[in-house]
Amino acid sequence: MLTKIHHIGIVVRSLDEAYAFYRDALSLPVHKEAVIQDQGVRAALLTIGESEIELLEPITPGTGVARFLAQRGEGLHHLCFETDDVSQELETAKQRGVRLIDQQPRAGLAGMICFLHPKSNHGVLIEYAQP
Amino acid sequence: MLTKIHHIGIVVRSLDEAYAFYRDALSLPVHKEAVIQDQGVRAALLTIGESEIELLEPITPGTGVARFLAQRGEGLHHLCFETDDVSQELETAKQRGVRLIDQQPRAGLAGMICFLHPKSNHGVLIEYAQP
Repeated sequence: MLTKIHHIGIVVRSLDEAYAFYRDALSLPVHKEAVIQDQGVRAALLTIGESEIELLEPITPGTGVARFLAQRGEGLHHLCFETDDVSQELETAKQRGVRLIDQQPRAGLAGMICFLHPKSNHGVLIEYAQP
Repeated sequence: MLTKIHHIGIVVRSLDEAYAFYRDALSLPVHKEAVIQDQGVRAALLTIGESEIELLEPITPGTGVARFLAQRGEGLHHLCFETDDVSQELETAKQRGVRLIDQQPRAGLAGMICFLHPKSNHGVLIEYAQP
């Protein structure tokens, strides 16, 4: 079962520049910063209600987030739903014919995660996370 | 003060087709459907935790949402934060040099609302709503 919006992923050119807006102008607190090597990004998590804003700055050329920035510019990147059972959720998506990026859950910044492919989701890159 | 993610706006080609994914495959309940004439859209609100997914199908050519669909295709469109005082929030944004779309709050689907311009928000169209 999907329980809430865990986070919204937003691609930015520079985390430090983005802080001027999201942290300083909107007053959203930063509660975590991390480098995710396998995705080639520096990430920051800001709290808003029961959810988070995940700012993603590409640090490695050629990765998904770097290509997104080059092709589409800064902006909304993905939508992550929290679930209490990411394996079951992935299995359900598979049975319903949803195209997957990850065939199995894997460890990510938000816990055990997986991504569904935007091609079968009306253009939206969707992540499931079980913290 | 921004209290939570009120909703995520997603542009779709057809509400009926999008229901097959968001309502049926993801099992998110639809709690409202409405035509917003001044934005030229048919909208549906689906509940997820304390937030909503707002699906937007353009029904009038030449409007903002119709242009978005033509230029970028289906996908994530805007991010709406709930606030307890939309007038104060708009004033704060103005004072902090954020570029605005609405100079004054106006009535919208989510209550009194206003939009900030994506040009000063790292490519993200941001809405404030006071239900």
